Amino acid sequence: MPDRIHHINFIVRDLEQAVKVWERVLDMPVTSRDHLDARGVAIARFELGSAWLVLVQPVQAGTAPARYLDKHGEGFFLISFGVDSLDAAIDRLGEDWFDGPARDGLDDWRIRDLDIGRTFGALVQFTESGTRGD
Amino acid sequence: MPDRIHHINFIVRDLEQAVKVWERVLDMPVTSRDHLDARGVAIARFELGSAWLVLVQPVQAGTAPARYLDKHGEGFFLISFGVDSLDAAIDRLGEDWFDGPARDGLDDWRIRDLDIGRTFGALVQFTESGTRGD
Repeated sequence: MPDRIHHINFIVRDLEQAVKVWERVLDMPVTSRDHLDARGVAIARFELGSAWLVLVQPVQAGTAPARYLDKHGEGFFLISFGVDSLDAAIDRLGEDWFDGPARDGLDDWRIRDLDIGRTFGALVQFTESGTRGD
Repeated sequence: MPDRIHHINFIVRDLEQAVKVWERVLDMPVTSRDHLDARGVAIARFELGSAWLVLVQPVQAGTAPARYLDKHGEGFFLISFGVDSLDAAIDRLGEDWFDGPARDGLDDWRIRDLDIGRTFGALVQFTESGTRGD
């Protein structure tokens, strides 16, 4: 079963401006930065207890994050719950709860989105990762 | 400094429908239910590791949660970071980072909202609570 918030993502237009503000709010320097080419995004993230707070700036038009930004503007993007086994989570709920195939995220994360039509307007996903600290 | 996600709130139109779905997604029964009369909301929440996942249904028109639902629809509502001392967090950032006075939340939570104009479209707040498990 999901045992923690694995990461929560915010979508932003300008990663550098957002990093400056979030460093003040969280009172810590940004933990790491990445590009995830498969999603067309630049990323900066903060490790906060057992969860990651992830800032996502779309840098490529037409991707899912870019479309989300166009439609909703800046703000909350998605929440991902940590599971020991993504396959077990899919078996438990059934394929019809999910949207699209599993995909790779940052580090060793394996991710699958739930169908947003089921979760009352919030984009929800599960992440399996090798180590709890990830 | 903020050391964890204390709670994350989702706004929903029908708490009972949302509880049923979230019990499936999280594979656990709802942890507790409350009414917070000062905010005009009915609440159901799940304890997930060190964080609470909180479902909020406005039951009174004209309140901040009801206005948020009217404007944004269902979905992510706010994220609250746990701090040891709310006063220290306010001193650190300065009054101009905050919106409105501190208020009581569930249990022994003391909460203050950041000015949403500073946080890129996401409603962010700090919560001080007596015990880490809250």
